[in-house]
Amino acid sequence: MEARNAVVLLSGGLDSATVLAIAKDEGYRTFALSFQYGQRHAAELAAARHLATSSGVAGHVVADIDLRIFGGSALTADIEVPKGAALDAEDEIPVTYVPARNTIFLAYALAYAETVGASDVFIGVNALDYSGYPDCRPEFLDAFTRLANLATKAAVEGQHLTIHAPLIELTKAQIVQRGTALGVDYGQTVSCYDADAAGRACGECDACRLRRKGFVEAGIADPTAYRTPPG
Amino acid sequence: MEARNAVVLLSGGLDSATVLAIAKDEGYRTFALSFQYGQRHAAELAAARHLATSSGVAGHVVADIDLRIFGGSALTADIEVPKGAALDAEDEIPVTYVPARNTIFLAYALAYAETVGASDVFIGVNALDYSGYPDCRPEFLDAFTRLANLATKAAVEGQHLTIHAPLIELTKAQIVQRGTALGVDYGQTVSCYDADAAGRACGECDACRLRRKGFVEAGIADPTAYRTPPG
Repeated sequence: MEARNAVVLLSGGLDSATVLAIAKDEGYRTFALSFQYGQRHAAELAAARHLATSSGVAGHVVADIDLRIFGGSALTADIEVPKGAALDAEDEIPVTYVPARNTIFLAYALAYAETVGASDVFIGVNALDYSGYPDCRPEFLDAFTRLANLATKAAVEGQHLTIHAPLIELTKAQIVQRGTALGVDYGQTVSCYDADAAGRACGECDACRLRRKGFVEAGIADPTAYRTPPG
Repeated sequence: MEARNAVVLLSGGLDSATVLAIAKDEGYRTFALSFQYGQRHAAELAAARHLATSSGVAGHVVADIDLRIFGGSALTADIEVPKGAALDAEDEIPVTYVPARNTIFLAYALAYAETVGASDVFIGVNALDYSGYPDCRPEFLDAFTRLANLATKAAVEGQHLTIHAPLIELTKAQIVQRGTALGVDYGQTVSCYDADAAGRACGECDACRLRRKGFVEAGIADPTAYRTPPG
């Protein structure tokens, strides 16, 4: 039987590297999609390229989009990335929120899927760790699926699109365990909002704290390269 | 009472120029959004800039996105734009179809709307002339509205987003009549898929034929600059 094609959103972080491994493990022929969007963490994109190559994807597109034209987020604008405190306020929307980011990412994924004849899109959103982001919720993904199945020539012609979010209900520790079982080399991934050019993590931002906590709780050695050893 | 903000998708063509005039007529403070997407018709974008300025919009963002990375359409790739025949096959999806284009455009509009606090987005889609495009149908717009109202921080905080498609059921002649009544200078707009650098239309592509037919049926003089007078 011929493998089905799937588009995998690949940021180069821990979550999307795990999702890519899951899609491959499920037998899909994978097409990775990454974004250069004026983010501070260009090291993450270098990690995405490395992961795509080492995973043997069938295609990898890096879409160059500039979300800075709209302003408004720590991940793209020149405002300070919070260290520490923000994680505790779980019900609030983090300052690192980017307006409509996952909507834009999935819209591009839809275009890529139609172009390569993919019936499936994989995205590494997580509703537990990122409860504050409206576009990481299951109801958002359901609404996008409904939209996608009305939006394209492929849909009109009967090609149903399915969006997979295999991490959506997992803790970071469970994600690390799942990926480790699938052979993901997390030393290749970059999660830090403030990584240096070599991809070394700050160890202090929300993303670093979440990631480190995941390895600790999973009981798996943390392969992350830190600029200074975490305390 | 303070004017409400609206984002208006502005291509520089006849339809979107009419939509901008409608939004202004309805009292909105308008923010125009255009796309540079590797399209052959860069003259249309120059027209968009001109229209935005002369209409006195409160803001104008030109998003530089490259849909050529995915390939697959006459409007962005190097395949021949059809002359003449395609218009007659109303039930087929035209070769000028761009995968997920309106999904991507509306995703950007959603980001812009959230950034400027707009509760309304205007788009010039038309279900009559472009019946072959899946993402010009009312059910597509309904699905996007539902998505938008789950996708953003603004939505979570109670700011409902409405998508307006005031042309959706109008014929080209009705659009021309409506815009003319609102003072739109259609000589400033470019619809041709194959306009030259000065914005002069070929007179032969589908967009030119539809546009010309609209002026004829509306009984309004066609101000379009053609490279050669239409037969």
